Amino acid sequence: MSEMSLNRVLVLHLVVVLALCVLSVVGVRVARADDALPSWNDTSTKQSIVHFVDTVTKPGSPAYVAPAERIAVFDNDGTLWSEQPVYVQLAFLLDRVKTLAPQNPEWNDRQPFKAALEGDMKALAQSGEHGLLELVMATHAGNTTEEFASLVEDWLATARHPKLGRPYTELVYQPMLELLAYLRANGFKTFIVSGGGIEFMRPWTERVYGVPPERVVGSSIKTRYEVRDGKPLLVRLPEIDFIDDKAGKPVGIHRHIGRRPIAAFGNSDGDFQMLEWTTAGAGPRLGLVVHHDDADREYAYDRKSAMGRLDRGLDEAAQRGWLVVSMQRDWKRVFPAD
Amino acid sequence: MSEMSLNRVLVLHLVVVLALCVLSVVGVRVARADDALPSWNDTSTKQSIVHFVDTVTKPGSPAYVAPAERIAVFDNDGTLWSEQPVYVQLAFLLDRVKTLAPQNPEWNDRQPFKAALEGDMKALAQSGEHGLLELVMATHAGNTTEEFASLVEDWLATARHPKLGRPYTELVYQPMLELLAYLRANGFKTFIVSGGGIEFMRPWTERVYGVPPERVVGSSIKTRYEVRDGKPLLVRLPEIDFIDDKAGKPVGIHRHIGRRPIAAFGNSDGDFQMLEWTTAGAGPRLGLVVHHDDADREYAYDRKSAMGRLDRGLDEAAQRGWLVVSMQRDWKRVFPAD
Repeated sequence: MSEMSLNRVLVLHLVVVLALCVLSVVGVRVARADDALPSWNDTSTKQSIVHFVDTVTKPGSPAYVAPAERIAVFDNDGTLWSEQPVYVQLAFLLDRVKTLAPQNPEWNDRQPFKAALEGDMKALAQSGEHGLLELVMATHAGNTTEEFASLVEDWLATARHPKLGRPYTELVYQPMLELLAYLRANGFKTFIVSGGGIEFMRPWTERVYGVPPERVVGSSIKTRYEVRDGKPLLVRLPEIDFIDDKAGKPVGIHRHIGRRPIAAFGNSDGDFQMLEWTTAGAGPRLGLVVHHDDADREYAYDRKSAMGRLDRGLDEAAQRGWLVVSMQRDWKRVFPAD
Repeated sequence: MSEMSLNRVLVLHLVVVLALCVLSVVGVRVARADDALPSWNDTSTKQSIVHFVDTVTKPGSPAYVAPAERIAVFDNDGTLWSEQPVYVQLAFLLDRVKTLAPQNPEWNDRQPFKAALEGDMKALAQSGEHGLLELVMATHAGNTTEEFASLVEDWLATARHPKLGRPYTELVYQPMLELLAYLRANGFKTFIVSGGGIEFMRPWTERVYGVPPERVVGSSIKTRYEVRDGKPLLVRLPEIDFIDDKAGKPVGIHRHIGRRPIAAFGNSDGDFQMLEWTTAGAGPRLGLVVHHDDADREYAYDRKSAMGRLDRGLDEAAQRGWLVVSMQRDWKRVFPAD
């Protein structure tokens, strides 16, 4: 073999290495743009999402957003998992009332406990916000933060959805799991911003959604630091700390994240202000509303639903430039097991 | 050149590539362990920090901690930057009183405003917590979150430390900047947990400490979401939301992070419960107290200081296994410009 042949071999080697590098970069790009959302049908909704992500991540583009500023916020109930026939946390609460009833015999004759024990949703609704609050305090407070986290995990391990028969953590929306992962792969920080209890979500959001506890924002009760027999504890008090719903959502976002998001995902009018706050910022913004119009695969509800009512959001989405996801049309699959 | 020579060239090529890979891995390890803390003298304090980090990051070790759980919390005043002769936020507050005084002529004759305007720290101290709160509300509330962030940034750009003559954001401790970066390079998530105002810190912590707004925990006033002329705003209300000090620090940590840290860094008794909560968890824990004993390069104070009093922490550090940093002995440099 001549000197020239050797050079040729080395050059060839170099070309192959470079080609592999180029291919791997292109491969990543293709994977991000086209294959990261396989459970989304190829409709304009998906195209708009991908276009937004491409726009804000393209270096040198005037609409480029630095990774530190790529904050995306997701509602939980009805946006990441099912909220019908009742919010999952309400199902947890009703089961907790039953578990605690033997130690509280007076509940058998006292509202709203009687209604909770009998599963009388009408009487429960009649007890109003005050009644619900009373139930929350009786079932969610008085324990330590560690005890409460265990209660939630133990309950989720055995509880089943009344209609779909599966654990609640399997009734998460596959297209939204892909969306969370797709955004993170593109340098976004993904947060949950839910009206639900922050401590009801934190024990499992990292495992199920890839969202760690410090990126969960929600409603909360107060806690108190105590040292008992030399052991420090955080005790959960029967006192509301914060309601992370409606106009509370931008407040919760600011309090917790300290930056205005550039993308927000919701499904009900409880998310209206979060979407409004997010999309009112300068530069490209993404607002998205999941519309539950799929009675066959999940549920169909909007303007008149007791849980996750969507009315004003449906009226104003178009004029505000928010995408409305039709579950029926835009989602190829609903749940991971489908 | 023979076929064999060609093979030899290719084998050699492979060996070189492998050697480079090995070297780069070893290089990273060496850099992490030895060169990441150049402003720390090689004392037992530094060795204990490095030993802790090596222990929790070594895969397969029984003390290994997954990156998701590697939470480190840092106090700010006196731990990351100077807090003498007065907390930086108090200097900001006093300047704000002066700026706003022409619009509030009644302040000239009313305490605690009179004391603030005259720089009478004794009278100011006599006005107590209530007086200070009144000053905070008069100078920190009533504006929007964006307006307040601008006020902080504008002030920091021109304000100078009365003794050291430099901008406050240059009076951060170089050894602690290195510690923050060292922990992050080892997969830690670094948070600030300060008694200071969360909105006073967030505008600059990412630039100065590499800690983004969502990883800052602090004291806060309430905000309200409003839409003015179609533009959504968050208005700062004259009402305390949360005091992130003493027994409030574990509460703030739980509220914001939702996980118990494995390492905590403080300098005063305001950090005692944060250190206690952190180091009471299972597995290896790191608690560290910065002791200001360096009158030449910074300040010397502890048990009797009005700002950053360190008394109980000094008494109990040894029995609780907390490291006490002697600024004089353990730090080669104090400020970045030294």
